[in-house]
Amino acid sequence: MKALVLERQGELSLRDIDLPSDMGPTDVRIKLHTVGVCGSDVHYYTHGKIGDFVVNAPMVLGHEASGTVIEVGKDVTTLNVGDRVCMEPGVPDLTSRASKLGIYNVDPAVTFWATPPVHGVLCAECVHPAAFTFKLPDTVSFAEAAMVEPFAVGMQAAKRAHIAPGDTAVVLGAGTIGIMTALAALAAGCARVLISDLSAEKLAIAESYDGITGINIRQTSVVDAVAEVTAGWGADVVFECSGAQAAMNDLFRIVRPGGAIVFVGLPPDPVAIDISAATVRECRMETVFRYANVFDRALDLIAAGKVDLKPLLSETYPFDASIEAFDRAAEGRPSDVKLQIRVDTESEAP
Amino acid sequence: MKALVLERQGELSLRDIDLPSDMGPTDVRIKLHTVGVCGSDVHYYTHGKIGDFVVNAPMVLGHEASGTVIEVGKDVTTLNVGDRVCMEPGVPDLTSRASKLGIYNVDPAVTFWATPPVHGVLCAECVHPAAFTFKLPDTVSFAEAAMVEPFAVGMQAAKRAHIAPGDTAVVLGAGTIGIMTALAALAAGCARVLISDLSAEKLAIAESYDGITGINIRQTSVVDAVAEVTAGWGADVVFECSGAQAAMNDLFRIVRPGGAIVFVGLPPDPVAIDISAATVRECRMETVFRYANVFDRALDLIAAGKVDLKPLLSETYPFDASIEAFDRAAEGRPSDVKLQIRVDTESEAP
Amino acid sequence: MKALVLERQGELSLRDIDLPSDMGPTDVRIKLHTVGVCGSDVHYYTHGKIGDFVVNAPMVLGHEASGTVIEVGKDVTTLNVGDRVCMEPGVPDLTSRASKLGIYNVDPAVTFWATPPVHGVLCAECVHPAAFTFKLPDTVSFAEAAMVEPFAVGMQAAKRAHIAPGDTAVVLGAGTIGIMTALAALAAGCARVLISDLSAEKLAIAESYDGITGINIRQTSVVDAVAEVTAGWGADVVFECSGAQAAMNDLFRIVRPGGAIVFVGLPPDPVAIDISAATVRECRMETVFRYANVFDRALDLIAAGKVDLKPLLSETYPFDASIEAFDRAAEGRPSDVKLQIRVDTESEAP
Amino acid sequence: MKALVLERQGELSLRDIDLPSDMGPTDVRIKLHTVGVCGSDVHYYTHGKIGDFVVNAPMVLGHEASGTVIEVGKDVTTLNVGDRVCMEPGVPDLTSRASKLGIYNVDPAVTFWATPPVHGVLCAECVHPAAFTFKLPDTVSFAEAAMVEPFAVGMQAAKRAHIAPGDTAVVLGAGTIGIMTALAALAAGCARVLISDLSAEKLAIAESYDGITGINIRQTSVVDAVAEVTAGWGADVVFECSGAQAAMNDLFRIVRPGGAIVFVGLPPDPVAIDISAATVRECRMETVFRYANVFDRALDLIAAGKVDLKPLLSETYPFDASIEAFDRAAEGRPSDVKLQIRVDTESEAP
Repeated sequence: MKALVLERQGELSLRDIDLPSDMGPTDVRIKLHTVGVCGSDVHYYTHGKIGDFVVNAPMVLGHEASGTVIEVGKDVTTLNVGDRVCMEPGVPDLTSRASKLGIYNVDPAVTFWATPPVHGVLCAECVHPAAFTFKLPDTVSFAEAAMVEPFAVGMQAAKRAHIAPGDTAVVLGAGTIGIMTALAALAAGCARVLISDLSAEKLAIAESYDGITGINIRQTSVVDAVAEVTAGWGADVVFECSGAQAAMNDLFRIVRPGGAIVFVGLPPDPVAIDISAATVRECRMETVFRYANVFDRALDLIAAGKVDLKPLLSETYPFDASIEAFDRAAEGRPSDVKLQIRVDTESEAP
Repeated sequence: MKALVLERQGELSLRDIDLPSDMGPTDVRIKLHTVGVCGSDVHYYTHGKIGDFVVNAPMVLGHEASGTVIEVGKDVTTLNVGDRVCMEPGVPDLTSRASKLGIYNVDPAVTFWATPPVHGVLCAECVHPAAFTFKLPDTVSFAEAAMVEPFAVGMQAAKRAHIAPGDTAVVLGAGTIGIMTALAALAAGCARVLISDLSAEKLAIAESYDGITGINIRQTSVVDAVAEVTAGWGADVVFECSGAQAAMNDLFRIVRPGGAIVFVGLPPDPVAIDISAATVRECRMETVFRYANVFDRALDLIAAGKVDLKPLLSETYPFDASIEAFDRAAEGRPSDVKLQIRVDTESEAP
Repeated sequence: MKALVLERQGELSLRDIDLPSDMGPTDVRIKLHTVGVCGSDVHYYTHGKIGDFVVNAPMVLGHEASGTVIEVGKDVTTLNVGDRVCMEPGVPDLTSRASKLGIYNVDPAVTFWATPPVHGVLCAECVHPAAFTFKLPDTVSFAEAAMVEPFAVGMQAAKRAHIAPGDTAVVLGAGTIGIMTALAALAAGCARVLISDLSAEKLAIAESYDGITGINIRQTSVVDAVAEVTAGWGADVVFECSGAQAAMNDLFRIVRPGGAIVFVGLPPDPVAIDISAATVRECRMETVFRYANVFDRALDLIAAGKVDLKPLLSETYPFDASIEAFDRAAEGRPSDVKLQIRVDTESEAP
Repeated sequence: MKALVLERQGELSLRDIDLPSDMGPTDVRIKLHTVGVCGSDVHYYTHGKIGDFVVNAPMVLGHEASGTVIEVGKDVTTLNVGDRVCMEPGVPDLTSRASKLGIYNVDPAVTFWATPPVHGVLCAECVHPAAFTFKLPDTVSFAEAAMVEPFAVGMQAAKRAHIAPGDTAVVLGAGTIGIMTALAALAAGCARVLISDLSAEKLAIAESYDGITGINIRQTSVVDAVAEVTAGWGADVVFECSGAQAAMNDLFRIVRPGGAIVFVGLPPDPVAIDISAATVRECRMETVFRYANVFDRALDLIAAGKVDLKPLLSETYPFDASIEAFDRAAEGRPSDVKLQIRVDTESEAP
């Protein structure tokens, strides 16, 4: 099967490769339509590893995917051939202690597409458990559906924030995940979201949404902006999506007494956190690891029109131009939010 | 001071009456602008009592109110003369056990406007604690502000539901509080709300909002409608706003496994609840008593445009026509959601 | 395999029967040691059905079980041959929506031992998923381990109550589940538990535990007793374990403002609930369906000595006297809390 | 009135001083019986400041107090002259936004005994709001009651941990607050608590309680000890009570997937936290600022015998030997958990 293969750090090729294709009774086979380019894919391409995960053998990239069911296992009752779907890329051991608790995302045994040594899905077909494959509402396009995966990170962040209706949230960092988180926070009940960044281009994209106000930290301090909007009380929730130490220093001057910090961005090294400052406001701090039980909810919100991901699609490349798409993603243009690859170039469906 | 006085069951008069006007150091004096007509006001008018609360002496009606601060107590730091405001009508003992826990709405010592023997505010001025008086954002009109009180009941219902983003909710009953609850549920993160009623007129008003779908129970069973929308899984949250026994019978066939029922409507007598049916789905059931800590959040959502109460205003009467307004409210026209009385007829502000 | 078979309503026999014995890769085979007699087993014996579950074919009884692993499937990593274990009798579809949420107990597809048409385990051996089989700490006997199942219902009740440390709880009904719930509530952080019943014998058993005070409702009203103990404030949590309408009438005079009712007992028919009374105190009501994710926690509490189930064991019968045990259970002696059957009569371990 | 006055850093005197003694209508006057010596009192003595709070004028020390009501304000309904009581030393503005939310401990306007410029209560009498004064059960001595304040910090930590029954907790640091936290965690439902320290003496005191196991980190790594006890799964809750950077490094190797860290100890400077390690286990992190709404619960647990603070009382000094008590506390003897001063030396009650 032809696939986009990361041969080793810095070297991509579009070539045939043998991929597992056995179906179990609870699996479905999916013809892929669209696959997004994620920062982690790009990082494996440019650095050959993320933390302890090292690319030691050729690996197919891609884990933000949508497509069409073309075969169903004999025990599958929730899906049919022809269903348009998107997929959760992580598959846990459902018999594990974490899975039984409903937190299958932190099952130590989880496997995840395009995380060594597991292949991703920038290829024609894949086999996946029906339990982690979600039927698309008619109004959700393949392109939108392939953005559910990154949006799901924002959903998980919003879920762990325990947003109360009418909350004021601050998002630090307007990268792809920052914007996804801002949209999820609004959908989850925030009255307003402030988002901060250095990049005017990124802020402009974020501010195109009702309810999101940008703070350009070259000109305005987040502490001052939040104090003004909240009359000195502070934000109910702060989503830290930058991973930058500078952002960590201000967290507890932004959040209200009894408020929450949600760490979404991943600093590569330990960061300095002022526990005493957190304590004086008795803050709760949450972390977010991928997502669990949010894909169906994300689809419902998109179908309802409460979340619109379409403005975040910067450009779509045909499968044959996949390497070009990755090279552009590696540039990190400030105006790019999401690049996608149309695997099924014969399909006319968007 | 001239006021709308309920002399006794069935008899209203607009006349002068002596009202308390002493200011404490943490109080403000408010010139009233708009006061809504609430079902409880009307019930005291038509029945002379609600449960154990009996009108034994002339009482001023009205508790859904907005106005302008005209005097501030010496210890008030959060409000200034000239601030446009709306008010929580219940005042608890802040030193009580319930208040210290943050659930001041269930403090047994709470006093509440227009609940015997406490006077309401269908009059020129009132004195109120600054702690329960909320400054209006510039974009919120007095008319909208006087609807914050009934909307706050919906907010409290949404808060106690613990809505997760993307939930599907069902509201049983499309009266004023049912619609308010549907709007709060959407603002709190629901992807969609189904609302049921017998009245096509009420359903039409509810369905004028994006995200709300009506179910006319003359034609369609709620059980079937919910099963279809949720593919047999059930609703995440059911808000019972009808108080009718017929609605109680279906609750546990509408809600999903692990879902929640929120009782908002108040049946006058005990109702039959099928605990075994609730148990098989391990449902949580919540009740809602007025509200606590939601007025500021409601105002933020209205100011942000996430909640629009304006379509719910059916008609505004001048103060001199107050009795006419009450007589119309007592008719219970299906197309009426909210009637209001403009106390300050000299003001040009809406 | 020899088993205790319920042939039809009212007819038990100890006889050979063919039982499923195929092992899957994630299963274990268990030699049974001790099996408790549960009220539901007895009810199938005496009535031939529970609700919609009807005994239409011979069925092996028993679901409160402990034993020893004698074979492990090839993918089992958590258990070894020779491990002493107890088992959750319900097996859900782990790929279901409910299971992924961590609420596998309400998965509609769950199968449960000794619930028609599924056989129970009053027999020599059984095959069970390792994921629902729990290794016993060395200090926990087989007899105690076979009581983990009914205690787990109490644990689930305590979990859903969200007990805060120092709470005062009331348990209505001192049957087996009432006492189990009282013990779980104490272990979960209650400072004290009041338990009510008509039976002096049952109350005496409950009161033999530190922290539990009995209320004999022939002599004292629960409302008065709770008011006295809590200085009029009310109980933080009320566990309704009687299923009786009389108990329902007092619920909202016992619970404090903002408190919780947990329905553990199952009234066969709908009961009258005073929603308005619940509302004035803004109570939360929870239901309890079996249990999820509590067996390991129950074992830890027993091993730690924080819960002692041994005093609840009324008598142990050898396997050959199983029918005698059921006939005694059907008598419903007030002094009987738990009867057990020693299946493995050759074992010397208790 | 004679009092223990901190004149300036390093200088204590027992002398007469004018103290506020006006009673408001909701206040009570209390004759002090016993006052504990807290680490913060000692720190003001030895360093003259804590963070931004600087001793710029003579200040009476002491905030862990019990005594007897000798006068009640005219609006006080919950207390009578002669009641034995203990007191919350922090008094918030009950009309504040934080107080209305039930989190009065983080009200920015709170005043707190023996925190500059507010006097403490190492003196004969004090005036205090009845709302923050708690009647003692008959079985709780003045000495125990004066330990409720430090125990309340442990209670608040246990509350914010959201302990589920049967949890395994780890406490890092066996100082006074570490032991108090361990006792609160056990009372709140933990099956077992592991506590770590360098001091064999402190560990011996902690281990004298059932359910607490010490880890001497000179000999054993906490990571290894927790892995062994939990079969590699990790602790449900980790209470960080040491404030030491070394402890921070291991947090996310001790806690289970989905578990919680509660920061109780206060590092004077920011500490390095590995957000990525926290994320992989999707941990929640909580902070603890004093306490709210736990004094009554603490008293109930002590009266019920579920918490025994008496073994933590190292020595009691008469009022005239107060300075000697502080000098001993400043030594920091490893075997000292709590020193107290008997202010009312004429009382025979313990």
